[in-house]
Amino acid sequence: MKHLARENFVYTMDQSNNPAIRVKSGDQIVVDTYDCFENQITSEKTNFDSIDWNRVNPATGPIFVEDAEKGDILKVRIDDIEIGERGVMVTGPGLGVMGHRMENFNVKMIPVQDGKAVFDKKLSIPLNPMIGVIGVAPENEGISCGTPGAHGGNMDTKEVTTGATLYFPVFHEGALLSLGDLHAAMGDGEVSVSGIEIPATVKITVEVVKGQSISYPFLENEAGLTALVSKETLDEAADTAVELMIDFIHEQAGLTLSELTMLMSATGQVQVGQIVDPLKTAKFHVPRYVLEAYGVKVFGES
Amino acid sequence: MKHLARENFVYTMDQSNNPAIRVKSGDQIVVDTYDCFENQITSEKTNFDSIDWNRVNPATGPIFVEDAEKGDILKVRIDDIEIGERGVMVTGPGLGVMGHRMENFNVKMIPVQDGKAVFDKKLSIPLNPMIGVIGVAPENEGISCGTPGAHGGNMDTKEVTTGATLYFPVFHEGALLSLGDLHAAMGDGEVSVSGIEIPATVKITVEVVKGQSISYPFLENEAGLTALVSKETLDEAADTAVELMIDFIHEQAGLTLSELTMLMSATGQVQVGQIVDPLKTAKFHVPRYVLEAYGVKVFGES
Ligand SMILES: [Ca+2]
Ligand SMILES: [Ca+2]
Ligand SMILES: [Ca+2]
Ligand SMILES: [Ca+2]
Ligand SMILES: [Ca+2]
Repeated sequence: MKHLARENFVYTMDQSNNPAIRVKSGDQIVVDTYDCFENQITSEKTNFDSIDWNRVNPATGPIFVEDAEKGDILKVRIDDIEIGERGVMVTGPGLGVMGHRMENFNVKMIPVQDGKAVFDKKLSIPLNPMIGVIGVAPENEGISCGTPGAHGGNMDTKEVTTGATLYFPVFHEGALLSLGDLHAAMGDGEVSVSGIEIPATVKITVEVVKGQSISYPFLENEAGLTALVSKETLDEAADTAVELMIDFIHEQAGLTLSELTMLMSATGQVQVGQIVDPLKTAKFHVPRYVLEAYGVKVFGES
Repeated sequence: MKHLARENFVYTMDQSNNPAIRVKSGDQIVVDTYDCFENQITSEKTNFDSIDWNRVNPATGPIFVEDAEKGDILKVRIDDIEIGERGVMVTGPGLGVMGHRMENFNVKMIPVQDGKAVFDKKLSIPLNPMIGVIGVAPENEGISCGTPGAHGGNMDTKEVTTGATLYFPVFHEGALLSLGDLHAAMGDGEVSVSGIEIPATVKITVEVVKGQSISYPFLENEAGLTALVSKETLDEAADTAVELMIDFIHEQAGLTLSELTMLMSATGQVQVGQIVDPLKTAKFHVPRYVLEAYGVKVFGES
């Protein structure tokens, strides 16, 4: 099994980044990650100015996947996530939905014990370990690992977790996959701008899918298939996610556009990834029983 | 038990509407409803021009609740929903997320059989019966029953179903509650602009809560508490829903604003009601275990 240490990272997903490792389609890779503050915060007394804000959202990578070419799809299965022993959250002026009401920068350290995140004496939060940042080199200029887009990136979407398979558009040779910014737990929206930020070790399997293309990431899990679209507004992101999913299913389902749109209205789910990154990420989810009823095959399935 | 027949309805929620029935706080009422097309569509051959579009979204009511005064909260428990035997969906140019791609108006009749909505030979959809339109007389001018707002109205939110309790701001004496536009099934977003539209009989219990005020509807169910906010954009609706919920919990939880915002980021869920009405409805949901950990009492609870 290949292993990529967290010291191999980027702050920007960019076609010009040098590969940190080269793998083959079908390879499994163990990837270590810093937390989104590059593990700089170790105490609740940390103040804003003592953090080097140029060192946030490091994503381990890039991983060059041999055979991946522009126009392909990169399939990334998340086999396992092992999170660290302590997470951190922050709030502050200008950060997140409540940033206009915050007067000071605040840090909270959150130990992980017995499978829960210990928020305080009153409440321990069930874990939902997830990957905040995961993506490929974007089509054009480089994009900060703090921003999401068609290439993935900082999507902060809680379904990006063990057992899920992500599908990314490949824009450049080798795809150049990077990932980081794990969360011990996060709710849809990530309203404070931080999940429970934590270092982690992630096991993934990569595979190149030829002969099909996508324009935004999709996610497949037991529940079904989800389009993940990030745009300036949640409204645009949601509309685009719905339309991309409908176009994808339409090719296979043998329904008219009108019938399929009705079906999606009755069974599809518009959901929210995050609303703070600063682009917003919307999800459009179609349950597996719908895909199965019409024989819809997901990317690379035969 | 009181009964209100569907012939008593309004197309606009308005303080000047004459009460169709007067009830006391604590009364249970059975309310019959037309579907959102006032039961005009009975065949898939129905064309656009044969429908009287001035007769859509009738809401049965208004129900005058004695003792309800401006500044109170009207609590409405949904005790039961019984839907009809056949639903209808439509699509057409300009309607919903895919309206720009539709060339013709289309109608689909959807029978309800054995607890499922029969979409076609390949797929029967599990039912999630829900109330699309429910609200009180708005603060200022009347608002069409096709539009949502601070008064509730056309929120098209799937959690508005049996077992849920809604809390509405009371803007006028008697509150003037109306409801209609039931769906046999609908997904978050209601992307085509119609759920599986169906006539129904709804059983509700109303109660006046004194001494507390809200500015938008809230919904309580087994899962927890949800703020329901409708605005021009999903972005504004989501931000407002988060802030209203945080302000509500903050009064009781004994957490700083910073701690509470972190807690909401880790455990709260930004969700989508609908994106087509034409205002958008966002939900912000907080799980019950969080409310219980900090002893947060919902409106009217002592
Ligand atoms: Ca992130
Ligand atoms: Ca993060
Ligand atoms: Ca984020
Ligand atoms: Ca409606
Ligand atoms: Ca409806």
